[in-house]
Amino acid sequence: MSAVHSEFAHRLAQMRPSTIREILKVTAQPEIISFAGGLPAPELFPIAEVQAAADVVLSRDGRAALQYGPSEGVAGLREWIAQEMRARGIQAGADDVLVTNGSQQVLDLVGKVFLNPGDVVLTENPTYLAAIQSFQTLEAKFVPVPTDEEGLIPEALPDLIKTHRPKLLYTIPNFQNPTGITLSASRRAALAKIAAAHSLTVIEDDPYGKLRYRGTEVPPVKHWDEAGCVLYASTFSKTVAPGLRIGWVVAPPEVFSRMLILKQAADLHTSSFDQRVVHAYLTTNNPAEHLEKIRAVYGERLGILQEALGAAMPAGYHWTKPEGGMFLWVTGPESLDAMNLLQRCIAEKVAFVPGRDFFPADGGKNHFRLNFSNSTPERIREGVRRLAALCRAG
Amino acid sequence: MSAVHSEFAHRLAQMRPSTIREILKVTAQPEIISFAGGLPAPELFPIAEVQAAADVVLSRDGRAALQYGPSEGVAGLREWIAQEMRARGIQAGADDVLVTNGSQQVLDLVGKVFLNPGDVVLTENPTYLAAIQSFQTLEAKFVPVPTDEEGLIPEALPDLIKTHRPKLLYTIPNFQNPTGITLSASRRAALAKIAAAHSLTVIEDDPYGKLRYRGTEVPPVKHWDEAGCVLYASTFSKTVAPGLRIGWVVAPPEVFSRMLILKQAADLHTSSFDQRVVHAYLTTNNPAEHLEKIRAVYGERLGILQEALGAAMPAGYHWTKPEGGMFLWVTGPESLDAMNLLQRCIAEKVAFVPGRDFFPADGGKNHFRLNFSNSTPERIREGVRRLAALCRAG
Repeated sequence: MSAVHSEFAHRLAQMRPSTIREILKVTAQPEIISFAGGLPAPELFPIAEVQAAADVVLSRDGRAALQYGPSEGVAGLREWIAQEMRARGIQAGADDVLVTNGSQQVLDLVGKVFLNPGDVVLTENPTYLAAIQSFQTLEAKFVPVPTDEEGLIPEALPDLIKTHRPKLLYTIPNFQNPTGITLSASRRAALAKIAAAHSLTVIEDDPYGKLRYRGTEVPPVKHWDEAGCVLYASTFSKTVAPGLRIGWVVAPPEVFSRMLILKQAADLHTSSFDQRVVHAYLTTNNPAEHLEKIRAVYGERLGILQEALGAAMPAGYHWTKPEGGMFLWVTGPESLDAMNLLQRCIAEKVAFVPGRDFFPADGGKNHFRLNFSNSTPERIREGVRRLAALCRAG
Repeated sequence: MSAVHSEFAHRLAQMRPSTIREILKVTAQPEIISFAGGLPAPELFPIAEVQAAADVVLSRDGRAALQYGPSEGVAGLREWIAQEMRARGIQAGADDVLVTNGSQQVLDLVGKVFLNPGDVVLTENPTYLAAIQSFQTLEAKFVPVPTDEEGLIPEALPDLIKTHRPKLLYTIPNFQNPTGITLSASRRAALAKIAAAHSLTVIEDDPYGKLRYRGTEVPPVKHWDEAGCVLYASTFSKTVAPGLRIGWVVAPPEVFSRMLILKQAADLHTSSFDQRVVHAYLTTNNPAEHLEKIRAVYGERLGILQEALGAAMPAGYHWTKPEGGMFLWVTGPESLDAMNLLQRCIAEKVAFVPGRDFFPADGGKNHFRLNFSNSTPERIREGVRRLAALCRAG
């Protein structure tokens, strides 16, 4: 098929092989103790409640649930989300909420609105690898923002903006993927202020915000967004179930209308049925109570992982101290080649994600990411035992 | 938000206001007899069967149905679709099938693979307006292929290919939207041959193929595609329910792998739950029998529409004779302004879609599209009575 044109072939050649897909293949083998992937624990899915919600939706409103629907999303769900947004400190009405196929689709739509080939996106470094992948399909360039244990450093932004004239800044302020780091409140306020001063659009990607196990909740960056520069994205993937693919974005009207046209062109609308099932689930159950259950389980698993690492890992290894989310980030000695370590680990039936793919440019050789949400305490302890033994063996 | 860059602003300014969305608003008013929209009849949705399927899926396989899944789609559904493809005369295995959010998403993904700004797409003229919209977001240009009552004329293609060097040809060979015209078998074979000779990629969009009420089924263009130049797209939107947003594409391996990367970047994957619900519906019911029911109802409605038009429309109006699908295309006298007629019709509580928006470039002023799938016989007769009276009044 010579008609696959050369520019796209070039574009694809620049893309790395999809690590996410390879990971999913490894984690699918039940004998492997997997700290890879980013899967919620399926034993916590509210299956019976979703089943009851699906029954109610089809019994009460089957025709609407199975018919074409508005590209913006189902009205009742948008109302619910807007209320949730206000509870998180964001001034939003239902009209500001666009329902998407998971928050991943927000990245695709925002990228299409703002990015042309060669445009610059500022990101944390490392950052979410499917965000890199999404912006790469639009041939964006990435410029890392310096970060420390409180997240990205706003003071570094004015110079970066002046030098690179970025079209977007992409950040995961809560329990970042892959590091688990949370951006401090003062830096969020500073980020919003700098974005406004430079008319820089910020995508605040917040899939994990409700998964806090310790410390105090911090309002979203968008809470401080008086200029309408921040797009806030979130999802029900971690609080209800990812398989339903229901996410959303809160965007200022001018951006909202552009995203809506692109959403319609992309797939007309998100599943009417799944939107209504999620809405029925949320309104006929106590989602806050379910969230407490998830938090208790994941918080325990995080504690066990940290304890096991502390007891077993050799000198020269250190790791982040997340207060929530699903990931913890390990840094080894300069000599570590995490890709090589992974190969040896898989032989011992334990897996993680090497750091390299989370860095838009170079770096990451001596880092790796551990997921703790989808392993039982026993498997976490056993997995760390095997991992640490291989780290000690060098 | 000055950061919305000027090129996209320009791109959007070129897009027409979304007629589809305006139509959906009009058709939402129950007192309007709507020949607009393209909605399946919701009274035919297999609600109880979908409910039973959802119950089975969640009872038997709830964790997998609510978890992240593969970007390609759920294995069992891909198998079912591959078998259906072979029944339609297409050589395909499960590995050739990519599950998408309705067939609309196929257009988005194929466009991203093949189109850069300024690239040319050949289309029927008129054609599906959301296809125009989707390719317009990629800043494609459109060149119409001459058509007659047997569809596009293959003999016209070599010259068009030479002059415009198109990246894609987009066609709806069965009961085309908006005209209802079906491409003849000999032309399908000729199209596949010409595409192969010129390495031209063809998107064969077939949402309506199973909705045949008269005449003999014609194999898809892809049936004659020995060179791997044809991408075949279809959907469960018309045969099961559109609200579930389950469509698919069959693509040659080189294109498949590119679309898969883009699908993953776009939204990770299509709803695990909806895919499994559709698969369970298909395998625990008799979908062919349900299809017969749909065909009987829509076929009757098409007949009543044609009869009513024949009895009431004034001289100077003629219309297509579709053998299936959901639409019929009316051509009025040169003096007709269908947009003006629509305004007068809405005052009389009857609606249709003016032809203009189906033409990528100019034209269409004296045409309009009538949908017959979503109105009862009584409302079709009454709607045509009102419409014809306004046509006679000039």
